[in-house]
Parts: sequence; structure tokens; C-alpha cells
Amino acid sequence: MRDLSPSGVIKPEVRGLTAYTLKHFKADVKLDQNENPYELPADLKREVVDRVLSRPWGRYPEFVPASTIKTLAKFTGWPEEGILVGNGSNELIEASLIVTLGPGRRVAMPQPTFTLYKLMSTALQADVKEVFLNPADMTFDVDGLIEAARTADVVVICTPNNPTGGLLEREALIAVLKQAKGLVLVDEAYHEFSEQTAATLLPGNRNLVVLRTFSKAMSMAGLRFGYMMAHPEIAREIYKAKLPYNVNIFTLAAAEIVMERRSVLKEAIATLIRERERVAAELRNRSAVQVFPSKANYLLIRTAKDARELFDGLYVQGVLVRDVSSYPLLERCLRVSIGLPEENDRFLRALDCALETNK
Amino acid sequence: MRDLSPSGVIKPEVRGLTAYTLKHFKADVKLDQNENPYELPADLKREVVDRVLSRPWGRYPEFVPASTIKTLAKFTGWPEEGILVGNGSNELIEASLIVTLGPGRRVAMPQPTFTLYKLMSTALQADVKEVFLNPADMTFDVDGLIEAARTADVVVICTPNNPTGGLLEREALIAVLKQAKGLVLVDEAYHEFSEQTAATLLPGNRNLVVLRTFSKAMSMAGLRFGYMMAHPEIAREIYKAKLPYNVNIFTLAAAEIVMERRSVLKEAIATLIRERERVAAELRNRSAVQVFPSKANYLLIRTAKDARELFDGLYVQGVLVRDVSSYPLLERCLRVSIGLPEENDRFLRALDCALETNK
Repeated sequence: MRDLSPSGVIKPEVRGLTAYTLKHFKADVKLDQNENPYELPADLKREVVDRVLSRPWGRYPEFVPASTIKTLAKFTGWPEEGILVGNGSNELIEASLIVTLGPGRRVAMPQPTFTLYKLMSTALQADVKEVFLNPADMTFDVDGLIEAARTADVVVICTPNNPTGGLLEREALIAVLKQAKGLVLVDEAYHEFSEQTAATLLPGNRNLVVLRTFSKAMSMAGLRFGYMMAHPEIAREIYKAKLPYNVNIFTLAAAEIVMERRSVLKEAIATLIRERERVAAELRNRSAVQVFPSKANYLLIRTAKDARELFDGLYVQGVLVRDVSSYPLLERCLRVSIGLPEENDRFLRALDCALETNK
Repeated sequence: MRDLSPSGVIKPEVRGLTAYTLKHFKADVKLDQNENPYELPADLKREVVDRVLSRPWGRYPEFVPASTIKTLAKFTGWPEEGILVGNGSNELIEASLIVTLGPGRRVAMPQPTFTLYKLMSTALQADVKEVFLNPADMTFDVDGLIEAARTADVVVICTPNNPTGGLLEREALIAVLKQAKGLVLVDEAYHEFSEQTAATLLPGNRNLVVLRTFSKAMSMAGLRFGYMMAHPEIAREIYKAKLPYNVNIFTLAAAEIVMERRSVLKEAIATLIRERERVAAELRNRSAVQVFPSKANYLLIRTAKDARELFDGLYVQGVLVRDVSSYPLLERCLRVSIGLPEENDRFLRALDCALETNK
């Protein structure tokens, strides 16, 4: 008898997965997705749109978007042959895992971290070795990572780590690279806020893959653009699992123009870093709140209150944050993105109010 | 000793693959990618751009693009719960294969067909069973497909088939569905030109997955949009391997507006079908050319001449076609897209000229 239900046709590893989803909430103050609250300037957007209107929409983008990759090479200082572009960095994470993982192959990653790594690795039937953060301050367990790297085909490290904000120090990353048996994927989605990068380690480490996105500091989350830097030999292999024509003409135009005019975002990023420090200091003044060290554009906090209750208490006041309490180690934790100064003030007031009611 | 070269860190199945690439050629008459030569109307494009300019670019698209999926449900008559959207249908093909394939699992597909299916299946370490087309007329080997479907976890059928143009008849598809042990992915990238669809078989066949794209008839190749229709239970599983936020705000807006104004493309599609028949008839009048039956917006032809030579002979006259002679069974074959009437005339003249020189 044929079994055409999911249990008959879908891999058991996939059936066991819970999909990555996010419920859609509307709110005045949106601090749930680590977006950049500063929009790109109107004249820049107009330039993008004009460029797109001057091109045929019915024609495929170039197979390899040569001019975008050239601009990226200038932007990063890394050679074109070692750069791949993606529809968001997620797509490049997926391609990197497809070419390295399968049954009998192992991936190591800190935990908690960005949900997608484990989800994809499990769908690919790999053995997932989780290295838990130090629970006291949510810093990386460097010795644990080094140990795991010795036997893993891939190590995935998001730094600053999402959703905790902690940074893997340069020396620690060097130690991981030195000991790693396979590839080390460093997801730098938030690197602009940490003022550090692993990219300078690329020349001496042919097992290093650095992933970047335009969704955070670059204020292009709605457009989907990411890129990868690696040794050209490795880039060539990852390329094989990347879908052709994966970035559309609109996003390619926007990415190029944003890079050409990169200074437009400098001030916004500096303000967000200052605001992160200000909000963190404000929170540290509150005895009811534990705030974890962050080098990203968000803060992880813990209170004595149930996370869902506190989330709701903020939401009724128009402030949307992320309830991350279901992640391992993160009981009673919320993640709050850094918004505009007035949004951050509103969050702080709403938090005080929510923590006071039914204390 | 660590081996950090590709042979040390990349799966052997991937290292053995040749990447899917396409060299970039410029030409007056571009008949190499089965694009729709009729651009969307300027006022429609303007409407898309205005909608995009009214939205923040720094904010993520909705996790599940509810309004686009609702519009697709109306457009197709298939319920929202059974629809997934992708950054081109390629992404949904990839997700479908990830949830079903791995070492020890088998995929069956006709050959020659769209390159990506075998490439992805091999990267996923699956066993690929190829069912060759009937070489005389490039029709599907229906008995072979049915036989292969009995033991395959997935069957992938592109109909009309790319790059040959042949259609799998409805009765044959029903027979495959009836015998298939697992999922049957029907890639309908070109279905508008065949005036047939497998979608009407969805209600009675929970193992049927229908893939569609806006890159061909819908004239949106530059924007990247595709969708999938399946039983909601199956869609829910494939969803787990689909990347979040995979379609950008620009493409979502364009897809919705094109569906709302679907009649704008009717005439273009009708003209392309008429032109296909006209060009095919013209080619059949030439004794030096064999033309295979096609229900798509392209024609597969074979001549006595070396394919590369003929390709070059056309290219020097400003006409770009696709050399598909390296596909199995397709020695001395070229694929030519149907363009505007005057472009098709230019192709025919260029072909005559190229076949006459150094005869």
C-alpha cells in the first residue's frame, strides 16, 4: 500500500521539525526584527527606481551580476572570485550547508543562536553539535567551540550572536579557525554595530566563510540582499548549490547604489550604537532588569516576570519586542531592537509601566 | 593533518558537479532564455514603483505574504493553505527536494530536462534515475516514467519539457500519479503556452506538486517570482525548507498587480503561440532542419551542422540562441526562443544564411 501522507513522502527529519515562523503583529513602535529604523534617503530610492524603470523587467538578471560583484569587491577589499551574492544571506547559509552537510556529517554551533542554522542542518540530516553559551552572561563558550570545531565538518558562528548580542573576540575566532577540521561560517549580520569583522582574517584562512547582509545596518530588509566572502576555491564549490538568477534587478540596483553612497548610513549606524549604549545603561539602572552585553542593534533582557506576560504588557502600550523565552537558556528573556531615540524612550517607559503593574 | 582544500571540506558529490552557468552574450535579437519579449505596460510598472516607494525598504516583508497568497488563490482557484511563494520557482524546487531527498532516496526525471533538477538532487546525495526521452521526436517515455515512479521518492516532470518543448499528455500524467510511490513535482514553467495544466488534478492527488513561475509568460524574469500548489499537508512540510522573507517587497507588489491586471498579457501570449506555430511551419519547410514538436515558447531544432558552429553563425548575425548540444540525446541541437515577429524573421533569415555558408 502506498502512503501518500507526509509520513510516507517526507523525510522523517523534516517531519520532526517545527517550521520557523513569526506571528505578524502591528504596533506603533516596532522593535522585534532588528531592522534599521532609519530609512534610506528619498533621493537614493528615487535613483534606484529610475534605474529599474530603465531596464526590461521581462529579461533575466545576469547569471552572475558582474557589476554588483565588482562594487562589492571595492566595498570589501576582497576579490571578485571569492564573492557570491544571495537573496538575503539566508540563501548563502543554505548553499554553504548543502555543499558540506548530509547524514554522517557534523555541524557545530553555539546555542542559543539564529534558528535557521539548526533547522536547515536537521533537514539535511546532519548531526548537530550544540555548544551552549555561558548562561551567566551569554558569552561564547570558547573552549567548547574549539573542542567541537575539531570534529565538525562545519562550524557556524553568528557574531554578534542573535538573539543574545555577544561578540566572539578576534583571538577566540583565530583559535577556532586554527583547530577547525572543516569550514567556519561566520555570520556577520550585525558586524557594523560591533565595529569588528572577521573579513581581515580571510587571507590567511582558507576555511573561513564570512556572511553579510544588507537587511540590518544597510536598511534594506525589504529588498533581500546578502553576500558571502571566502577563498575562491571554496566560493566556487558553494556556488554550485546557489540558485541561478537569485537576486532580482531591483535589489541589485539598490545594493549598488547604497554601496556607491555608503556614507548615507554612517550617521544612522553611529546613532544606533550610541542609543544601544544609552538604553543598556538605562536598563542597568533598573534592579528588576538584567541586561546582557551586546555589540549588536538589540539588547537581550531578563526580568522576574513571565516573558509572554511582559511581551503582552509592552504590546498593549504599542511596543512590539521579540519573546525569545522559548530558546534554550533564555527563560524569561525578551529581545528588543534599538529604534529611534524616541522609540527607545517609549520602550523604557512601557517597560517600567509593565513591570510595575501587578508586581 | 587537516585538509582545508575543497576535497577536505566539501562533499564529494558536490565536488563532482559542474556548476550550472550561462555565458553572457550581448545580441540584437535575444532568443536564448525563453523570456517574454513583450514588456509589461509602462503604466503597470509605474503603479508597481509607486507602491514600492510608499513602503519602508528597511522593514522585512511579511513572514508569509498574506495578500499575495490571497491573490494567488483567486488567480489559481487553489486554497491559500496549499500555496507557497518563492524567489523564482527554482527556490521551491530546491525546498521540495530538500524535504524529500538524501542518501538512499531516489528521484526520477526525464532526460534531457532542466539542468537544475539533477544538479540539486546530486548535491543532496540522492540516487538519480533518468528516463530518456524517445530520441526520434523527444516525446516522453511514458511507460519508463511510470515504471520509475513506482520506486522513486520523487518524480520531477517539466511539462512542456525544457529544452525540448514536448508536453506530457494528461492521461500519461494521471497514470504516473496513480503509480507513483512518492511526490510528483510538475514544473509548469511554460504551461501558458501549452494551454494545459496539471492544476486541475490537484484535488484528487495529494502527491501532486505543481510549480509555476512568473519568469516566462508573465514577463517578470528580472523580478524573480514563482509559486507552488500542493495539498496543504504537503505544502506545510515543504514550507519548512523554504527560507523566510524570500520574496522582496518589489516583486510582491509586481506579482499582485500583474495578477490583478492579468488580461494585459493575454494578447502577448496568444501572439507568441501563433508565432511558435508559424516559425515551426517555416522550419519544417527547410529540409536541412529538423524541428521537434513544442508546446512552449521555444523550439528545439537539429541540423547536420555542428551546434557550436551554427550558434556562432547566428551570433555573428546578431541572433543569440541556446546551444543545447551538450545535453544527452541533443547532439547538433539548438534551442531558439520565440521572440517578436520581426525577431523570429531575423532568426529564420540568419539561419538560412548560416546553413548556406560553408555548406
